[in-house]
Amino acid sequence: MRAVTIRDGELVVEEHPDPVPGAGQVLVRVRAAGLNGADMHQRLGRYPAPPGSPQDIPGLELAGEVSQNGPGATRFEPGDRVMSIVGGGGQAELAVVHERVLMPVPEKLTWPEAGGAPEVFTTAHDAIFTQAGLQPGERFLVHGGAGGVGTAAIQLGRASGAICYATVRNAARHDDVAALGATVLAPEEFTEHGPFDVILELVGAPNLPDNLNALNTGGRIAVIGIAGGAKAELNLGVLMGKLARIHGSMLRYRPLEGKALTARAVERSVLPLLASGSVTVPIAASFPLDEVNAAYDAFTAGGKFGKIVLQI
Amino acid sequence: MRAVTIRDGELVVEEHPDPVPGAGQVLVRVRAAGLNGADMHQRLGRYPAPPGSPQDIPGLELAGEVSQNGPGATRFEPGDRVMSIVGGGGQAELAVVHERVLMPVPEKLTWPEAGGAPEVFTTAHDAIFTQAGLQPGERFLVHGGAGGVGTAAIQLGRASGAICYATVRNAARHDDVAALGATVLAPEEFTEHGPFDVILELVGAPNLPDNLNALNTGGRIAVIGIAGGAKAELNLGVLMGKLARIHGSMLRYRPLEGKALTARAVERSVLPLLASGSVTVPIAASFPLDEVNAAYDAFTAGGKFGKIVLQI
Repeated sequence: MRAVTIRDGELVVEEHPDPVPGAGQVLVRVRAAGLNGADMHQRLGRYPAPPGSPQDIPGLELAGEVSQNGPGATRFEPGDRVMSIVGGGGQAELAVVHERVLMPVPEKLTWPEAGGAPEVFTTAHDAIFTQAGLQPGERFLVHGGAGGVGTAAIQLGRASGAICYATVRNAARHDDVAALGATVLAPEEFTEHGPFDVILELVGAPNLPDNLNALNTGGRIAVIGIAGGAKAELNLGVLMGKLARIHGSMLRYRPLEGKALTARAVERSVLPLLASGSVTVPIAASFPLDEVNAAYDAFTAGGKFGKIVLQI
Repeated sequence: MRAVTIRDGELVVEEHPDPVPGAGQVLVRVRAAGLNGADMHQRLGRYPAPPGSPQDIPGLELAGEVSQNGPGATRFEPGDRVMSIVGGGGQAELAVVHERVLMPVPEKLTWPEAGGAPEVFTTAHDAIFTQAGLQPGERFLVHGGAGGVGTAAIQLGRASGAICYATVRNAARHDDVAALGATVLAPEEFTEHGPFDVILELVGAPNLPDNLNALNTGGRIAVIGIAGGAKAELNLGVLMGKLARIHGSMLRYRPLEGKALTARAVERSVLPLLASGSVTVPIAASFPLDEVNAAYDAFTAGGKFGKIVLQI
C-alpha cells in the first residue's frame, strides 16, 4: 500500500507492506483522512504514536470501506462505510482498526466529510459532554471557533440547547462561525460576555486566568489544546470560591476500551445529528494523497474554516 | 442569649437578642460548636459570613437540641438532638437553622463530637465522593492528615475501600493518623509513593505541581484549602496527558439547597458509620464558652490531632 510517510521531518508518499488485521480488527480501504494539529507535531518528532500504531505514518482519523474482517470481527461487512479515530496510520491506502472503535458513516456524508469527522466530533463530544457535562440552557464558550474542533463543538453545543459563544481571531471567519450558531467574539473581549458555565479551551495557558475570571459558579473548563503554551497560572482561591473544575483530556493515548467508549458515545449522540444534516462537517479543502505537502501547508497556514482532508 | 462575638478582632462573650426561627427554620439550643480555620480568618475581618448569617458571631457548625420549630418546620421535634453546618453564628447559646440543613445526631456521639463533626465530615465527603468520585480500591492521598478534615477524610476513604495515604508534618502525630487507617508520609516524600487516583488538597498552591506529577491517569485533585497560598503553577499539558481534573470547592457560600444536598449525602453515607462507631470524631480539646480565647489559641497553635470544640 501507499502511505504518507515521515522521513526526517519530511513528508513523502511511500510503499509499505499491506497491514494484516488481527483478532477483532478490520482492514479498511481508506478513502479520506483528516489532518490534525497532532500530525504537525508528529512530523517534527514531538508527538510519537502510541504502541501498536505505525510510528512513521501520520493520521489520527480515517474513513473508508471495510476490506476484510480479521478473526472474530463481526460488527461490519466488507464494503460497509466506516470511520474512526486511530492512534496513527490514518493517512494511508489501508489501515487496521479494532472493530469496537469503528463507527458507521451516515449516508449523507461525503468521503472528505467522513474522513474529517471522527477526531473533531469525538474530541468535542468527549470534552463538552462526557467531561464537562454541558447542560441545556448553559452558557458555553468555545475558544478557537473557526477550527475543526471549534466548529464541531459549537454545533454540538447548539444542538443540545446550550447558549454558544466562540472566540475567533480572524475577522474574515466571523460570519462563517456565527452561521454555525454561536455569538462570535474577538479573543480580547470574551471576559465581558461571561459568566460562562463551560469553556472549551484549545489555546491553553494564556487564556486560563481570564477563563477562570469569566467562569460562572459551578463552571467547568475543559482543556484539550495548548497551542499557546502549557504552563498556566491558576488561582486556587477563585477555583474554590466558584466551586469550579478544570479538566484536561486527549484521545490519542487512551487504551482501546477508552476509545471504544468514545465511539459508542458519538454513535449515540452525534451520528443522528450528522445523518439528519442538522450538524455538518465544514471542509476547508481536500487534497489527493500525492499532494500531501500542499495539504500540510494549508493546515499550518491557519485562518481556515473547517477541516483539511486527504482523499486517498 | 450569650454568644462569642467579634469586636475589632477580639473575641468576647456578649449578650445578643434571642434569634427567632423563620419559615422552615428551627431554633437550636447549641450544646457544642467546633472551631474551623474560617473562624480564624473571620476574626481578622477576612472572611465575611454570607447574607442571612450573623456577621459578628463566628462558628460554622453546631450541635444541640431542638428548642422550637418555626412556621412549617416539621422534620424534628423539640428535644431532638441535631447538628449542622451553618453560614455563621454557631458559637452561641441559640442559633436558627433551616430544617433541611439539620441532621440527626447518632446516639453514640457526645456533644463535643457532634459539635465537631458537621463541617469536617461534610467537607470531606463532598470533596472526596461528590466532587472527586473516589472509588473502592483507588489510591487516595490526604494532605494534612492530622487536622479535622484530614482525620475525617482518611476514615471515610478507608471505610469506602480506598487505599489511604496521608501527609503529616508533625512526627508526633504520625501514630495517631496511622491508627485511622492511612499510610503516613512526611510532606516531602509523597511524590515517591504515587501514583494517586484522588488527592485531597488542604495546603494549596505549593503542593499543586507535585500533586499533578504524582497523579495517576484519570486522577482528580480536590482543592478545599489554600493555607499555603492560592496562586499555583499548573502544567496544562500534564493535566491533558493524564486525563486529570482539578476541583475547587467550599461549603460556606453555597445556597440553602446546596447545603441541604450535602446534608442528605452525609445522612446517607456518613451517619451510619458514625452510628456504628467505625468512624469517629477525634477531639483534641474542648473548652467552655467563657474560655473561647483559650480555644482559639489552641486552634492556632497547630500540631493538634482532631477538633477543638466549644461546649456551650
